This record gives sequence, structure tokens and C-alpha cells, in this order.
Amino acid sequence: MDVVEVAPRDGLQNEQVMLPTDAKVELVRRAEAAGIRRIEVASFVNPARVPQMADGEAVVAALGPSSGVTRIGLVLNRRGMERAVAAGVDEVNYVVVVTDTFSRRNQGMSTDESLVVLGEVAEAARAAALPCSVTLSASFGCPFEGEVAVSRLVEVASRAMAAQPTELSLADTIGVAVPSDVRQRVDAVRREIGDVVPLRCHFHNTRNTGIASALAAAEAGVGALDASLGGIGGCPFAPNATGNIPTEDLVYALERSGFPTGLDLAALSETAVWLGAQLGRTVPGLLSRAGPFPPAAA
Amino acid sequence: MDVVEVAPRDGLQNEQVMLPTDAKVELVRRAEAAGIRRIEVASFVNPARVPQMADGEAVVAALGPSSGVTRIGLVLNRRGMERAVAAGVDEVNYVVVVTDTFSRRNQGMSTDESLVVLGEVAEAARAAALPCSVTLSASFGCPFEGEVAVSRLVEVASRAMAAQPTELSLADTIGVAVPSDVRQRVDAVRREIGDVVPLRCHFHNTRNTGIASALAAAEAGVGALDASLGGIGGCPFAPNATGNIPTEDLVYALERSGFPTGLDLAALSETAVWLGAQLGRTVPGLLSRAGPFPPAAA
Repeated sequence: MDVVEVAPRDGLQNEQVMLPTDAKVELVRRAEAAGIRRIEVASFVNPARVPQMADGEAVVAALGPSSGVTRIGLVLNRRGMERAVAAGVDEVNYVVVVTDTFSRRNQGMSTDESLVVLGEVAEAARAAALPCSVTLSASFGCPFEGEVAVSRLVEVASRAMAAQPTELSLADTIGVAVPSDVRQRVDAVRREIGDVVPLRCHFHNTRNTGIASALAAAEAGVGALDASLGGIGGCPFAPNATGNIPTEDLVYALERSGFPTGLDLAALSETAVWLGAQLGRTVPGLLSRAGPFPPAAA
Repeated sequence: MDVVEVAPRDGLQNEQVMLPTDAKVELVRRAEAAGIRRIEVASFVNPARVPQMADGEAVVAALGPSSGVTRIGLVLNRRGMERAVAAGVDEVNYVVVVTDTFSRRNQGMSTDESLVVLGEVAEAARAAALPCSVTLSASFGCPFEGEVAVSRLVEVASRAMAAQPTELSLADTIGVAVPSDVRQRVDAVRREIGDVVPLRCHFHNTRNTGIASALAAAEAGVGALDASLGGIGGCPFAPNATGNIPTEDLVYALERSGFPTGLDLAALSETAVWLGAQLGRTVPGLLSRAGPFPPAAA
């Protein structure tokens, strides 16, 4: 299973403490040293709205050339796309919010308008010879509209495919999904779009169902899962909530479930603790506190 | 799905703060008011070893007669059984540890010896007209022996059935299970013992897999799941670990997954917060921080 590390972007973006550029660079280097092969390193969005991401260019520049690793930059419009290409990322990720209300509040445009921009971003990515993945935000529930019909998700997924993205990601942005939702929605989207592109899933542990949903996604055949070291991050719609599913906890669960990841669990746990120290708090991830499956005593 | 509340026993037993008897009584009353119909209210063990449980008799006496609710007392030997009967519990639960090393360290006897005591306890329960459930501890892994063979679990389950318990519970005492383990072990035990008694499962969220395992158990057909309000408790083998799976988080996950519980989620969340205040800490449960599935905005 391909684990995509998102702590440097989705994780940090929802943290109170601003991390300096060199700490972000060290975070990426530590993740790569633990075996991570895809990592969301920055977003190229309005720095006035997301101050934690204002140094995206500096992070990518300081990291230098990638080797065997894909560094992803998140973009929400053509301006961001240009910045990401100029910065030198290896892949861009564009976000389409499945519900109109949330899309207008977050992106300042309807889902329809966002799909038009996706077409332009994807074309620019092809011109720059960069993979362009698409994340469908609020795929499992919306903070404003509540339940999201499977038919609505399938419709937006189908229309997003017109832009020929290289991967489609279903994101549980507010952390409400349970395994049965995951099976139903992954299957419905797969039936609609066929096997043209791999699927990816993105879960938050807001309501303690994130690892359960991630394992259901793995069993449903998705190729990649997002996670953040230490489970850092949060949810703008639930001020005291935890963040993304913790990378080290996900890796424990995947490996025990027969989905090899190729990652170094001890190194991930150490990095989770290190990241907590950088942020001045105990991270929500549990594996760094509990340790791995106990070995037989000698 | 039958949710068995274990915060007053397994939860509190692993907490640093000693709760006074009247707070324990209020905890039980709040759980019952939220709809809980089975609740582990106390253990009748050596108070020198488990000081938090020294007031078991006082808790049961203060609660008074139960009506439509089953109050369970945990016992580990005949002495405890006599105390539980005298105290007036509605059901006793006896623990057999599946691995010898852990059984000797925790109960001071081998698994074989423990199975003999089970026979005596179960007979005493029948004499007192009380249901006697059996928990198989370390069913998914052992802190000393590491991996526990499915064949060993099945063997111990089969021998425990000789005592004619009213229910058999598979406990992930150290919080290592993943859904595939749950499916495999529930199926293996079910094949061995048949449909004579209902199965129950007990999970800890030590490594963030507890809710995933609980949902897998529900899908595998177990009749009851243990949980503790707020997810209080811990693990004696991982000093910084969290406790049982949080009742309110489990109820959210079950209800969203199509397993009705009949419980009042808001009341459970309020009780989790109240319990955290009694213990002077933020409980690990997430639903009380995040809130339920968001409603559609008016």
C-alpha cells in the first residue's frame, strides 16, 4: 500500500504553532528517510488565508532535487499552479469540493466553477509534464449540507475525470466516514469511472473512525492512503478535534492486516515524537506511546 | 448491538485518580440514564492489588435494586464469587487468560488451573441463579508471549465452554488487534463452539485500531461489545497508552454502520466530559470534542 504523507501540508495547515521553514524541511527529510515515497510538501494558496503555507517555494527549494520521491504541491487555481510549477514540485493536487455550499465557502466558487478550473489546471500540468491528482473534498459528508448523496459524489467524480487526472482521491474532510460508507462510495465511483486511474483515500480521525475507514479502503482496492505523522492537524469545523489519521498508526494497522507498506515503523514513530516536540504538544498518534506488537520474551 | 459499559471497572481500574464511591455510583446512573442495559460496575478482587476497586460492595449497595439493567461484577476466584453474590450483582464475569505466562503473572496460576477455578465459579453462579460470562484475556496477543496462535485461543475457548458459561468474550487486552484478526478469531471460535452461547468482544484502543476491530466484530455477528465512557483507562503494559474504546465513539460508529444501539449519543458524550472532569483530565474519546454527524444547515 502506498502511504502518502500529508503532515507538511494538511497537518501543519491546521496547527496553531507556525513551524519555521527548516523544521518543515527536516520533517520532509525524516519522512523520506523512513521510506515515504509520496509526500505533500506544500500548498500554493493565498498566504493571507493560510499563513502556515506562505513559505511553499522556500520549502521546495531547500529540499533540492528529489530522487525516487514524489513531492506534491496542492493548488486551488491557475495562479497556484504557476507557482507550483515554478517551485519545482513533482506532482500537483487540485481540490474539488463535492458540495456547493462548502465549495463556495472554501474556494469562493461553486463545484461547477471549480470543475472548469480543474480543466485548466490539469492542462497546465500536462504542459509542464507533471502528474495532476484530484481530491474530491467532502466525499463522505459536508459541514454545511450534512449528508452527501452517493449519486452526487459519483456525478462529480465522473465530471472530474473529463480533465484526465492521473489519480482520483476521495477525502473525508470532516472525519465522519465509517467502513460501510467507504466500501459503498469506493465501489460506486469505481463502477462509474472504470479502471482508468488509481483511487486514493484521505481520512481524518475526527470521530475515531479514521483507521477503520482506511483499512476498509485498502480492502476495497484503493492504491494509496493519506496520513499525517503523529496525526497532527485538526478540523476547522470542530475546534478541538484531532487531525489526519496518524501515519505510524496506519502503518501498524496496514502491516498487521496484510498490506505491506515498505515503511520503517520505528522511524515513523520517532518522527511523530520529534514533530510533537516541534509543535509543543503531545501528538494524537498512539503507536509512539504504545510501541509495536510485543515480541515474544526471550 | 448490545454495548456493555466497562468504565466503572476496567476503565477506572487503570486510572491514576481514585474516584470516591458516590462518583462511581453517579457514573453508573448516568450510563443507565443514557440507555446502557449492561454495565460492569465493580470487581471483587484483592483490594491490596487493585485499590480502585476496594469499594465494590459499597458501589453495588448504593446503587440499590436494578430494574431492566444487568450489573456485572468481575471475579477471579471463589472468594470473589462469594463477595459478588453477597453484594447483589446481576451477573458475574470470570477471566481466563489464554497464555500461560500472562495468566501466571496476572492471576497467579496457569491457564489450566484457571479453567478449573472457572468450573467452580460457574457452578456457584448457577447455584445463585446468576448468569456467568467468561472473558478470554489476551485473545489477540500477549504482552509476554507475543503472537497467540488461533489454535490456542480455540482450545481455551472450547475448554471454557465445559463450564457452561452464559456468554464468551474475546478480549484484546493489550490493544493489538486489527479487523482481519477479529474476523479470523471470531469465526474460528464460532466454528468450534457452535451457537450455544452468544459471543462478545472487548477492545482497547492502545494502537488506534479499537473502533476498526469493534466494527469488524459487529459485522462478524458478535452480540455485544465492551466500551468505556470517554475511553478512560489504560494499559499496564504501555504506561502512556489510552484505554478501552470510547463508548460514545463506538456508538457513533455503530449507528452510522447500520447497527442500532438504542443509546443516547448526546448523553453519553456529556457523561464522557463529566467523567474527564472527575478524573482531572481530557478523556481520549473524540466524539465529545467533534460532535455528531453534522446536520444540514437550515
